[in-house]
Amino acid sequence: MDYFNAPGRNHLFVPGPVNIPDQIIRAMNRNNEDYRSPAIPALTKTLLEDVKKIFKTTTGIPFLIPTTGTGAWESALTNTLSPGDRIVSFLIGQFSLLWIDQQQRLKFNVDVVESDWGQGAKLDVLESKIASDTAHTIKAICIVHNETATGVTNNLAKVRQILDSYQHPALLIVDGVSSICALDFRMDEWGVDVAITGSQKALSLPTGIGIVVAGPRAIEASKTAKSLRVFFDWKDYLKFYQLGTYWPYTPSIHLLYGLRAALDLVFEEGLENVIARHNRLGTATRLAVEAWGLKNCTQKEEWHSDTVTAVVVPSYIDSAEIVRRAWKRYNLSLGLGLNKVAGKVFRIGHLGYLNELQLLGCLAGVEMILQDVGYPVKLGSGVAAASAYFKNTIPLIPSRI
Amino acid sequence: MDYFNAPGRNHLFVPGPVNIPDQIIRAMNRNNEDYRSPAIPALTKTLLEDVKKIFKTTTGIPFLIPTTGTGAWESALTNTLSPGDRIVSFLIGQFSLLWIDQQQRLKFNVDVVESDWGQGAKLDVLESKIASDTAHTIKAICIVHNETATGVTNNLAKVRQILDSYQHPALLIVDGVSSICALDFRMDEWGVDVAITGSQKALSLPTGIGIVVAGPRAIEASKTAKSLRVFFDWKDYLKFYQLGTYWPYTPSIHLLYGLRAALDLVFEEGLENVIARHNRLGTATRLAVEAWGLKNCTQKEEWHSDTVTAVVVPSYIDSAEIVRRAWKRYNLSLGLGLNKVAGKVFRIGHLGYLNELQLLGCLAGVEMILQDVGYPVKLGSGVAAASAYFKNTIPLIPSRI
Amino acid sequence: MDYFNAPGRNHLFVPGPVNIPDQIIRAMNRNNEDYRSPAIPALTKTLLEDVKKIFKTTTGIPFLIPTTGTGAWESALTNTLSPGDRIVSFLIGQFSLLWIDQQQRLKFNVDVVESDWGQGAKLDVLESKIASDTAHTIKAICIVHNETATGVTNNLAKVRQILDSYQHPALLIVDGVSSICALDFRMDEWGVDVAITGSQKALSLPTGIGIVVAGPRAIEASKTAKSLRVFFDWKDYLKFYQLGTYWPYTPSIHLLYGLRAALDLVFEEGLENVIARHNRLGTATRLAVEAWGLKNCTQKEEWHSDTVTAVVVPSYIDSAEIVRRAWKRYNLSLGLGLNKVAGKVFRIGHLGYLNELQLLGCLAGVEMILQDVGYPVKLGSGVAAASAYFKNTIPLIPSRI
Amino acid sequence: MDYFNAPGRNHLFVPGPVNIPDQIIRAMNRNNEDYRSPAIPALTKTLLEDVKKIFKTTTGIPFLIPTTGTGAWESALTNTLSPGDRIVSFLIGQFSLLWIDQQQRLKFNVDVVESDWGQGAKLDVLESKIASDTAHTIKAICIVHNETATGVTNNLAKVRQILDSYQHPALLIVDGVSSICALDFRMDEWGVDVAITGSQKALSLPTGIGIVVAGPRAIEASKTAKSLRVFFDWKDYLKFYQLGTYWPYTPSIHLLYGLRAALDLVFEEGLENVIARHNRLGTATRLAVEAWGLKNCTQKEEWHSDTVTAVVVPSYIDSAEIVRRAWKRYNLSLGLGLNKVAGKVFRIGHLGYLNELQLLGCLAGVEMILQDVGYPVKLGSGVAAASAYFKNTIPLIPSRI
Repeated sequence: MDYFNAPGRNHLFVPGPVNIPDQIIRAMNRNNEDYRSPAIPALTKTLLEDVKKIFKTTTGIPFLIPTTGTGAWESALTNTLSPGDRIVSFLIGQFSLLWIDQQQRLKFNVDVVESDWGQGAKLDVLESKIASDTAHTIKAICIVHNETATGVTNNLAKVRQILDSYQHPALLIVDGVSSICALDFRMDEWGVDVAITGSQKALSLPTGIGIVVAGPRAIEASKTAKSLRVFFDWKDYLKFYQLGTYWPYTPSIHLLYGLRAALDLVFEEGLENVIARHNRLGTATRLAVEAWGLKNCTQKEEWHSDTVTAVVVPSYIDSAEIVRRAWKRYNLSLGLGLNKVAGKVFRIGHLGYLNELQLLGCLAGVEMILQDVGYPVKLGSGVAAASAYFKNTIPLIPSRI
Repeated sequence: MDYFNAPGRNHLFVPGPVNIPDQIIRAMNRNNEDYRSPAIPALTKTLLEDVKKIFKTTTGIPFLIPTTGTGAWESALTNTLSPGDRIVSFLIGQFSLLWIDQQQRLKFNVDVVESDWGQGAKLDVLESKIASDTAHTIKAICIVHNETATGVTNNLAKVRQILDSYQHPALLIVDGVSSICALDFRMDEWGVDVAITGSQKALSLPTGIGIVVAGPRAIEASKTAKSLRVFFDWKDYLKFYQLGTYWPYTPSIHLLYGLRAALDLVFEEGLENVIARHNRLGTATRLAVEAWGLKNCTQKEEWHSDTVTAVVVPSYIDSAEIVRRAWKRYNLSLGLGLNKVAGKVFRIGHLGYLNELQLLGCLAGVEMILQDVGYPVKLGSGVAAASAYFKNTIPLIPSRI
Repeated sequence: MDYFNAPGRNHLFVPGPVNIPDQIIRAMNRNNEDYRSPAIPALTKTLLEDVKKIFKTTTGIPFLIPTTGTGAWESALTNTLSPGDRIVSFLIGQFSLLWIDQQQRLKFNVDVVESDWGQGAKLDVLESKIASDTAHTIKAICIVHNETATGVTNNLAKVRQILDSYQHPALLIVDGVSSICALDFRMDEWGVDVAITGSQKALSLPTGIGIVVAGPRAIEASKTAKSLRVFFDWKDYLKFYQLGTYWPYTPSIHLLYGLRAALDLVFEEGLENVIARHNRLGTATRLAVEAWGLKNCTQKEEWHSDTVTAVVVPSYIDSAEIVRRAWKRYNLSLGLGLNKVAGKVFRIGHLGYLNELQLLGCLAGVEMILQDVGYPVKLGSGVAAASAYFKNTIPLIPSRI
Repeated sequence: MDYFNAPGRNHLFVPGPVNIPDQIIRAMNRNNEDYRSPAIPALTKTLLEDVKKIFKTTTGIPFLIPTTGTGAWESALTNTLSPGDRIVSFLIGQFSLLWIDQQQRLKFNVDVVESDWGQGAKLDVLESKIASDTAHTIKAICIVHNETATGVTNNLAKVRQILDSYQHPALLIVDGVSSICALDFRMDEWGVDVAITGSQKALSLPTGIGIVVAGPRAIEASKTAKSLRVFFDWKDYLKFYQLGTYWPYTPSIHLLYGLRAALDLVFEEGLENVIARHNRLGTATRLAVEAWGLKNCTQKEEWHSDTVTAVVVPSYIDSAEIVRRAWKRYNLSLGLGLNKVAGKVFRIGHLGYLNELQLLGCLAGVEMILQDVGYPVKLGSGVAAASAYFKNTIPLIPSRI
């Protein structure tokens, strides 16, 4: 059963699924339960309340759908839109591309705004479209907060500002899969109408819960949206929320207990501390990349991602070979370059319940691999750059002071 | 975190989610992994091969979709049918009712054949419809193999025989959620075109994999079916099967390792032995119900289910009170009566990795509760009836001879 | 690795090691830790405080020795006595026999008071010995609170009363292995000088902690006791207690976290409720034995044990065959008859985190086996007798009211 | 329950208890079992056979005693020696000191040969004692293979050679606690009469099994040795080995299954590969220490330990502060300096199922801490030295080629 065993721990630095903290593994180490007993609704109630805190919303309604991020996308779209509806969607990397593919297959009229991979969403194009759409034909703006394929974080506050400037009623639908609970995300303040994430990202669970939070305007839209949906339909959830039994169909008992533990860990550390820790890990990674003389796929500092860094390799190197060697020789899991950047970038995921020494071990591994594949990096250089930064910024662990 | 603790083990006798064997709990007790490393495709390949054995098919293609049974239903329907297609669907209890509701919301033209709850599908009505449908307007027959709400098992061989008699090309789409891997199910022999089950039923995993197996005619139909679908689309899976990477989006690493352990357990015991064990547990439960002087909701022996027994209580008793007391006083989880039979029946689920003494403990508990709520049962009577049967039919445990 | 797999749960009814609650299994599901970090002393401190509550002592000092009950015996003896010291020891079954063997090999002068197996300690003989020992040559009384081999509980209050009547200073050393945390045990009130138990008994952990609690007189005696000892020496523990680091050598991190969870469960249920539950389970078992027409090995009601019942089988039956069949055919683990009662009794352990339906499942299994081996028991009879008693005595589960 | 939580994984680099591989954690994640059922003897039989391979003996008999290394010491001594027996024992650090303390308290006549801490056993002194002991008054040589406090490995082959040169019959008793299964250890070839280790060291289990392997001469000696012993007596084990039930008293079911998994991992990787991996980790650590400009406590290369490195800090630094900061700020667990070297050294344990990137993460952490406490180390320097060595010596992971 344990195929491909290797000594010691796997160093998991893909941008999801991420490392699961031991506390969560323990919480999920259990038998099934009857989800119609009083225990599961009582548990669910606390989860729904606490998930809202992670999204920084008081008015949103969360749906913990037994699905993946792809399913969460579909739930966000089909509950709020009707076939033929015009939406503006930003293509900036593989995940936004896949979402746009879904939007098109669901028969929306997708107005694609494309950027070079490595750049953020073209918000100036958005502004001109919004400005000219006085008829309000645009029903929704679909945008990834953080493009996992290129390590680009978009400025959502700016999107909201544009919509507000023109008093445009388009729904703002945000993929926060690789951002929420790791990057600064403010659902209510930024007027996000639907936001989604997946359990296997910053929340550090196994895959299996697509978390969708719908704001009041989205709930309102769902009453008239004509896209066919059953499994993903919010209406069934809302009915069972009213009943107090919460589940229209069987949830994963394990993921519910796991989510409880995950939220407890976040609140114990403090959401702002979690976000600050991700910023430290992201900054240190970027300093290491710079020390290695390599380029970050992300083209401007404003788009730098604190959850994933895509590193551009020289043209004479195949980045896929770096990923292969990392796994085969160092038990290190890195992210491949995808689609347009396949072979050109490899990715370091630095999200989840990670600490600084874990990242430094990863960076030391990357240095050895870079040498292995013929790139003349100085061993220890990235580690030194990251350490120098860490040394001055790591706080004492609060529980251990 | 452990709300509602109670001494000793919970006696889980709802018809799903069922008890998870320790071997499976252990297999899932792990960190996440990179699903793009060679390990997960290698594991997935064995799972896809072995799942086919459980369905008794060599020509079917399995899809292990990160969803529930409800999602598996949707995947079966939307990949093979187009809005407006006429389907014949049998309403015999709450789960067939929910499936029909889904079929209608997905805009199929559903020809509902209703039975009294406690009776099987009216196959004579099917025959007359098929006989008269010389124009082949009926595109699919949708039928639950085992209705979990009433404990009724339908005769799928007979359905196939009817279709064959009239050489009718309608697809045969089967909900095997509470049957496959517990009851005798023969996908190829019975010409089932799509069959589904859920991980949390006889396979004894947590909720989270909707297993859909599509036969060649279903795969063919999926090429022209016009129902919109993305998350549930087989096409994306088939593309990644070709690539050898298997997953269009992130699977649950835990459930894959868990499924490996579950299949290993089934093959170690022997699928036919598993089915025989369920028959012993079902028979013994029915003997106990008879000894108590109560009626089985299932009205004829031919429909008796070996995975769940719905027990009818006298009209002066509220069956929901039995379920409540079982949990509050005896740490026993029984199934509620649903919808039309709410308050009238309670259900004993006897599927999964269960043995005889577990069931006898449950039956002893039910006897005490029946007395508690005012039904004059003789304590020990059901246990005696079940034991007398078991004594002569339990084989030695093969690994322990 | 999972040799001898069998469907469903093992029904573990040996009188130790007992079933481990899921909460404890979860707590132990973890990596090692540095036991010299601040975390382990902080944890240990709470354990030492709380263990005293289980023993009902405020003046005793607990030692959590990485050993078994046999080692705990040795620790109790060698820290308080010198070779050649006269001790009075009661032989009433296999475990008291083994302890006496240890006492003799450690070169104490053991005054053995033997009873028929099935009878309690002869306290009248003790009284006459104490009465005549005006020179106080008797240094200690060694007695098992509950003899696990025969299911006999001795009256410790009476022992104390005898010693007090004659103002005899002999130390009272008690083996509480199969009693403490299940039977009523009062260290301070009964003037017990050393009491021991093992983690794998009523505390429901794996084997590995020999818990020894020493009262003030025992601590005083340890300062002059001349038995050689190092591993088992309390002195080393006391030194590290002073230092606040607590451990003279490496403890099992897992068992410490497990013990924390075990104590939490006891306090949540309430120690008195735990004891009452054991009384219910013991009483019900005895009622079943009576209903089967079999004899309890324990010859008088005053000695009845609430943690283990030894059942005498007719002479034409080999009780070992019952135990073998239970495991081979019903996945039920019963206790063998040992030594003098080998082949003559089998034992039902009913201690630990067990509930009523678990016991009823066990009893139903025993009934079938009794028939299998040729004893004409009426199926359901024992279950009926036990159920009738339970029905009127099981309280609602407190957390679920 | 999770006191002192900190983000990410604890970096456990004390020289024991060491990290437990996930495979072993899974194997131990289970309920108790009846150790008198056929399952546990069958399991035990495989363990006893396979443990011998780890010790490289075919003639030794293993005892898996539920105790710690301290108890294993006591078992080795009391089974082979009588009070008053003269033994030669080497004092080279805290653990040999503690063993000598035990030897003295057990009333042996201990001839202590002391070295400076950081030096190996004075084998020239041994030779002169052996040479002059023509009367064979020396009954045993007690030596630690690897002194965990100073990171000094003694040359056991040389000890055997000395004894053989003079045809001296003294027993050779070896503490292999921090060596066996990590360093090259050859029980039969080196004529070791008793060797011990603990489960929580290179075997990577929780604390709780003291593994003692006795060669034929030791077994012979045990027949006449007069030291009192019961819990630690080999005789009781040998009796139960004969009976085929193996256990004189209750073992830890969990540790037996864990040991099975541990041995499987060792054999899968290959014992020689395990030893080579430890050599790589030890060498790299020493290169890093050199790069930092610090001294290894171990004074000569011949004594360098591949399981633990004690690093000497400048006199103006308190090494305990390094250990404290490591835990408080970086979630890194290092070993304290003990006794004579308290405050002067800190220790890096590099034994168990560890890989190279884990060690590099640790080294990066140590560099930051060294700066924190005022030592002018160049960040990245140790990592660079270790990486440069690793790059050329890490083989591809065999299972992943």
